[in-house]
This record gives sequence, structure tokens and C-alpha cells, in this order.
Amino acid sequence: MYDLIIIGGGPAGLTAAIYAIRQGLKTKLITKEFGGQMAKKEVEIENYPGMGQIAAADLIAKFRDHAKSLGIQIAQTGVESVTKEGEIFNVATVEGGFESRAVLVATGSDPRHLNVPGEDEFLGKGVCYCATCDAPLFTGRTVAVIGGGNAAFEAAIFCARFAKKIYLLEAGDAIRADAANQKLLADSGKAQVTTKARIASINGDKFVKGLTYQDEDGKQVELAVDGIFVKVGYVPASGFVKNLVETNDRQEIIYNHETNATKTAGLFVAGDVSDIKYKQIIIACGEGAKAVLSIREYLKNKL
Amino acid sequence: MYDLIIIGGGPAGLTAAIYAIRQGLKTKLITKEFGGQMAKKEVEIENYPGMGQIAAADLIAKFRDHAKSLGIQIAQTGVESVTKEGEIFNVATVEGGFESRAVLVATGSDPRHLNVPGEDEFLGKGVCYCATCDAPLFTGRTVAVIGGGNAAFEAAIFCARFAKKIYLLEAGDAIRADAANQKLLADSGKAQVTTKARIASINGDKFVKGLTYQDEDGKQVELAVDGIFVKVGYVPASGFVKNLVETNDRQEIIYNHETNATKTAGLFVAGDVSDIKYKQIIIACGEGAKAVLSIREYLKNKL
Repeated sequence: MYDLIIIGGGPAGLTAAIYAIRQGLKTKLITKEFGGQMAKKEVEIENYPGMGQIAAADLIAKFRDHAKSLGIQIAQTGVESVTKEGEIFNVATVEGGFESRAVLVATGSDPRHLNVPGEDEFLGKGVCYCATCDAPLFTGRTVAVIGGGNAAFEAAIFCARFAKKIYLLEAGDAIRADAANQKLLADSGKAQVTTKARIASINGDKFVKGLTYQDEDGKQVELAVDGIFVKVGYVPASGFVKNLVETNDRQEIIYNHETNATKTAGLFVAGDVSDIKYKQIIIACGEGAKAVLSIREYLKNKL
Repeated sequence: MYDLIIIGGGPAGLTAAIYAIRQGLKTKLITKEFGGQMAKKEVEIENYPGMGQIAAADLIAKFRDHAKSLGIQIAQTGVESVTKEGEIFNVATVEGGFESRAVLVATGSDPRHLNVPGEDEFLGKGVCYCATCDAPLFTGRTVAVIGGGNAAFEAAIFCARFAKKIYLLEAGDAIRADAANQKLLADSGKAQVTTKARIASINGDKFVKGLTYQDEDGKQVELAVDGIFVKVGYVPASGFVKNLVETNDRQEIIYNHETNATKTAGLFVAGDVSDIKYKQIIIACGEGAKAVLSIREYLKNKL
């Protein structure tokens, strides 16, 4: 029997682990992988206070090593479901169940798909969701990045190190990325940014050859590209606890922003899987710490 | 005219500076000193994710250097008042006024006093509020630490490197410090922890000679000590904006925990000066970032 099971190995979950161990809580962290979305994040992280510029993979390794140095127990496996009987939670994984008095859901979110013809067909044949992983494949070639937020711009900036030309296509009226990111991409001299461009299909034979989008006048435009990076947001990994929580229309878990509690007593949430408005590493870290201090109070009379 | 003036140079203010510059906001940070309460914090910081163990002063230097490397403008001076006329704030300092469209209050908090006879009289003559600064003065001697939270235990642990004996006296029924800190202090073999001990007076001639406390039976107990470290909480530095915000009974600024907004449009708050329940470096950092992203939205139609 654990005091606390933390589900998720990203910034929120690993910060929670650091805090939980220091609070003297008997804690297990369950995660399939470390870093999640962050480990796939393009370019360097420049806004984690105190680190200056650091590669995302290096930062997550520092989080993981910090938690491990304090002695966190880790089960590296996938969680199938969470149930509650009386006061006790059962966390079912591929490798068996674990019991605890409290659970922290810090599972983050997964890339959203465009859901257009050709997207699934050309996955791994030109359609990519991770520029860090795949941008070098397109050295000297032409790519499209789909999306208008920071993630899209960061992907495009990274692609600019390799590709000869980048089309950034955003379906909405406006670009949402930071001014700093917009300037960085413009400075590459390789990018063309188009708004009000709705992707209609991804085309090719064995590999991607191009895409078709509808422009602001409703006209179909063909673009010849060799690779397509889809960066149109994320789907929170909340499905496995949907019996215990309320979610909003983006499938984010609704929670009390002061205590990190959900509608189920003893089940707490932190980070990008929650309905917190801003998805940032440092914010997820703060939420992980806050959740554990709140969990300590919840457990005070139960230990 | 600035887009944003950040008041305070601790973790919340410096994280806000990093975010504001990257958001392209014309920003000034005004602070008398860097780190505030944190720069005076005893022992090493062990719970800032990714840093492992680091001296508080080194961590705040990393925050400051990070913000400076991005080009933050800093005025190192004290803020006297903040007023709002129409949509514009005026931040009055010892060195003149600055105008902005938004203000972030991140001023943290100052040590709370015991308010007992002798406390003011013996300030700097045995009465201390900062163990990092003053613990070495009591090498081979006996000290008392007043308080039962993490700050008191961290001070006592640091004192144990120098002093031969430490009395930790807590007025309440129970110790609130982390189990990890309680164990660390116990492991020093130098400490005696007493609860339900209410300090009545601090005694001495030229320097502190001892203190008097009332024990749980109401009996007056004399204790001979050479130094007294007062660690009984903090007073939020909210007085200079009291005309623009609501505060709770601890003088913490009441705010919307989702947006960091206060009751005055354009005035936001982050970190220990706010009524957020847990006062932690990583939580203050997350709040500083969240506040700036919220400020960016507030300013969207004003720039």
C-alpha cells in the first residue's frame, strides 16, 4: 500500500516525485516514458528559470536524475485504469495492480491529428509529429509545418537548420506564437507563413509529394513538399480516469486551481492534462509541487 | 511607457521577467535586491527540479543571470506606491516614477517578528532572522530557534554545523516541518525540540543571555542561550498596493488563481505576496510565468 501513486513522468510528475519523497510519503511513480511531450520538444528550452538555454532531453534527464537521487520508486509501464473502492485506489497496469491512498494524474497530453486524407497513410513516410526526431531527414528539401502556435514555430525553426524551404500553414486568422519565435523563424530567411490555410489532403505515392489546402477565398492550392510536420495541439491523456473526473470539451481534467483536487476525493491532477490555461514546463512543475503539498494535507489523518 | 512593470526580484519576479521578454513585452523590473527571502534562506535548496542540491544564493544568481541574458531592464530601487489613472499605472520609486499598462506585484514577504520584550533591543546583539548570515557567529555556543515549520528546521539544521546545542521552540501543539527536515535535525544529535512553548521575553545585558518561555502547564521556563533565530513566518510586502487590492487576514493579496488577476484591472500578482497556500520557489516560478501569459492576453488589445 502506497501513500501516493504519481502517474506520469514529465515535468509535473517528476516535480511531484521530488516533493513527495521529501514529504516522507511512500510514493510510486508510474510512467511509460520520461519527459513525454517535452522529450519530443523541438529546439532548445530557453524559459526554464535558472537553466538559460538547455536541450529538452537534457532538462528532462536532470528532472529524472533529481527524483531518482532522492530514492523515488519507479514502475516503467503503462496504466490501464484507476478505480477507487472505499478509501483505496487501485492503479491497474500492464504489469499488475498497485494500491494507494491518493493518486496524482500528471499524464500530460499527446499530439492532435489533422484528420485529413493521407495523414495516416503517410505516417512515417513524410508525415511527422516530432521535428526533433525527423527534421534531419529533410536536409536540403522542402517541408510544411501545420499550426500557428509556439510548438509549430519551434518545429519550423528547428526544420530551418536542415530544410531549404519551409511553409508554415495556419488554419486560423492569426498567429499565436511568441514574438520571439516569429522573429527567429523570419530570421531564418527560409520560411513563408500563411494564415487561413485549411489542409484538405496530404498527397503522394510511396512517400509524401505534397499537400492541398483551401485558401481564404476557398480556392484549392497545391503545394509540393517532401515532409509535413503536424503541430496543431495536443490531446490530454485523461481517458483512463474518465470514470473519476470531470473533463472540459478539450478533454482536460477540471480541477480546483487552489488545491489541485478533482471531483474524486484523493485523486489530484497537475500539468498539461488539467484544464490549466497555459501549458508550460515551469508552470507544470509548480503545479506538481502544489498538488503534493495539498495531498499531504489530504493524507494527514489517513497515515 | 512600459507594457509591464514587474515589482520584485525573487523567483516569481525573475521568472516573470524571462517570460515577459520572450513575449516581446516592453518590460521593466524594479527591485531593491535579488532573491529577497530566498537569498537569506538557510541550507541548500534541494527541491528546485533539475538542480539537485544548490545553494540558495547560487540559484537566485542563475535566475538573475538568465533574465539579464535576455535583456531585461532593471531599476534597483524601492517602490513607494502604485497608482492607476485611466488605463495607466504610475509606479513611484525613490528615483522617480515609471508608467506602464500593466503591473505585476511579486514582492514576496518579510520575516514576522515575535513582538516580545527584548526582541528589538537585542536585534543584532543575539536576535537574528537569518541563519545563513549569522549562524557562524555562534560557533561552539548555544542557540534557540523559534518556530516549527520548514524555515525553522532549516535554520536549526544550518545552526547545527556551528553551535554545540540548539533548542527549537514552537508555540503550537505540533511541528509542521517536512519529515525529511525533522530527521535531518534529529540526526545532528544537537537539538532539543519543544512544542507548546510560548516565548515571553528575550533577556540579556549588552548581548542576549537567554529567553523566558511559558510551557504547556503555564510555567515560566528560563533558558540560557547566546543567540536566538526567529523563524515564525513572514509578512507579505503588500502594503504599498493596499489601495488597489484586497488582502486576507495575513495581508496576502487575494487573487484569481487561474489568471493571477487582482480586483484592479491590469494589476496582477504572483508568488509569496499572494494568498497562494504554499510558499515554495518552484511554485512562485510557475505563478510568475502564468501571470505573464495572462498579462499578455490582457494587453492584447492595448498594445
